[in-house]
Amino acid sequence: MTTITQRQWIYRQQPVGAITPEHYELVERTLDTALAEGEVLLESRWFSVDPYMRIGQSSKPTYDPDPHPLNTVQEGGVVAQILASRSPNFAPGDWVQSYTGWQTHAKAHSSTLKKLDPQAAPVTTALGVLGMPGRTAWFGLTESGKPHAGEVVVVSGAAGAVGSLVVQFAKRHGARVLGIAGGPAKCAWLKEKLGADWALDYKAFTSADALSAEIKALTGGVDVYFDNVGGMVTDAIIPIINRRARIVICGQISQYSGGLETAEMGPRLLQHMLYQRATIQGMLARDYLHRMDEMIRIVGPWVKSGDIVFEETVVEGFEQLPAALNSLFTGEHRGKLLVKA
Amino acid sequence: MTTITQRQWIYRQQPVGAITPEHYELVERTLDTALAEGEVLLESRWFSVDPYMRIGQSSKPTYDPDPHPLNTVQEGGVVAQILASRSPNFAPGDWVQSYTGWQTHAKAHSSTLKKLDPQAAPVTTALGVLGMPGRTAWFGLTESGKPHAGEVVVVSGAAGAVGSLVVQFAKRHGARVLGIAGGPAKCAWLKEKLGADWALDYKAFTSADALSAEIKALTGGVDVYFDNVGGMVTDAIIPIINRRARIVICGQISQYSGGLETAEMGPRLLQHMLYQRATIQGMLARDYLHRMDEMIRIVGPWVKSGDIVFEETVVEGFEQLPAALNSLFTGEHRGKLLVKA
Repeated sequence: MTTITQRQWIYRQQPVGAITPEHYELVERTLDTALAEGEVLLESRWFSVDPYMRIGQSSKPTYDPDPHPLNTVQEGGVVAQILASRSPNFAPGDWVQSYTGWQTHAKAHSSTLKKLDPQAAPVTTALGVLGMPGRTAWFGLTESGKPHAGEVVVVSGAAGAVGSLVVQFAKRHGARVLGIAGGPAKCAWLKEKLGADWALDYKAFTSADALSAEIKALTGGVDVYFDNVGGMVTDAIIPIINRRARIVICGQISQYSGGLETAEMGPRLLQHMLYQRATIQGMLARDYLHRMDEMIRIVGPWVKSGDIVFEETVVEGFEQLPAALNSLFTGEHRGKLLVKA
Repeated sequence: MTTITQRQWIYRQQPVGAITPEHYELVERTLDTALAEGEVLLESRWFSVDPYMRIGQSSKPTYDPDPHPLNTVQEGGVVAQILASRSPNFAPGDWVQSYTGWQTHAKAHSSTLKKLDPQAAPVTTALGVLGMPGRTAWFGLTESGKPHAGEVVVVSGAAGAVGSLVVQFAKRHGARVLGIAGGPAKCAWLKEKLGADWALDYKAFTSADALSAEIKALTGGVDVYFDNVGGMVTDAIIPIINRRARIVICGQISQYSGGLETAEMGPRLLQHMLYQRATIQGMLARDYLHRMDEMIRIVGPWVKSGDIVFEETVVEGFEQLPAALNSLFTGEHRGKLLVKA
């Protein structure tokens, strides 16, 4: 019997506030490498950390009825290479995308894997612009946001994996785009690299009213609000939406460190929806999984030509995974945050 | 020169909380009855009081950029009879619907009037089921709510002019309907006369969580929420929406006595929109004014046959108008509240 040493991050305890060391445990196991028919053995190369992981830790029903189970490997998207294969579809060395989570190695049935072509695009794009974040940005914007040329699109969390793509996709629709992010460095990047017409550092505003007044002064009013953040930024925007505005609820990261358990309080603003006959639409990437070809047809060439910025922030080391997840909510990363094994 | 005595309710001062005597003044004027070409002289018979009148009193922009002007006659829908006419389209005695507001008599250009046929339906229906409230109920439900047979439709303000129609329209779509209203008498009426499957008195619940649990226990979850009220009732429903639920924001009357000026605080719940990929859509009756024929084609025969309940609560006396408006938010009326001259 051949074995290898497998390391895993086990989800041990539900965090309510920030993620700290007691919530995850790094364990080392001996993995028997024998494969069943159709199985492959993977070695993980890149791990995705995504805000949705905090939703899965809510003890209340979310998009799934039950939270991520305790005492199991943290689920998540991975880019891996095949070490051994009993599938005719995969050979050692092949690159794949898997959903095998935070472990250095895994056995997986070949039917759960997507083969990646490293010549077509960098393999890490499978976790970013050509994967879940890209799908979220593209379909959230086109199916729920429906921007028109000349309209004002505001994006919260604009420097993140999804938001940074929404900014660029909205520009390509002919919209005028305002990105909201935390800190002047992200704001400079939004304007200089991503082509945002305006960028605002929400941390520079002490109230929703002040932020609202500044957005109104810059844009005149908001037609599409692509919201990754919720909370005070959303409070600032709802009162200044234009007639028939579309608000896309893609994420509410300001609520992920406690607000999903015990709701934060905020101003009641739904009257603006009827004033402006506006729409709020929640969306999830999973609903568009079977429409990826539509997006790849359009976005794939932009990735290949380099016409779109898909920046990655790389954290080195498997042992950094929980800290990297936490840094999504506090850190200075731009674009897609990845952990390299 | 022939003259008549005209009485008017003048809107004098912006109310923030409840309407009290200082906000309106009853004045008596002498009106010269001479008419220009195309004009008619009206005598008001029935006055509409509607929750939207409180939106127009907000000092902040609403669906109109400016509030109802002070020191002018309170605007509103009226059913009137022609006293004199210089229009070939109207003769003395004809019934019309006008938007001449809270005054006993008015001159109006014939192009601003809609002739009513008292044989086709009671003239007061022009202010109710066959007028603005009916249009709101019909298009709000069919265009934004989009109920399917077997789905659960919850209606807040269910005993009001709009809500009582939504309950019945939703039943005709094959939905299971829960009406929420204030007090056991309204709830009994919802079940016994309007055919609601369930009715709940929100005043019997001390928290949104308790109301939420009861609605969940009765219905299993909410597919369409037709909201006239906002506030605590909406807080109860958002966490128990079903996948792809549609929330129609038709009114937010719980906010009309101050909450439009200084936002009330309530729980942040937008994460449920993405959990369930749900939609919140604001709607206004005015957007469907030019589609009335579509509604009349379907609802008109139900009114004629008596298959639909369009109850009216009548307050006698022109001088009661401000008090009647206030009672919309506190009173025991059912269906459409009208003031008879």
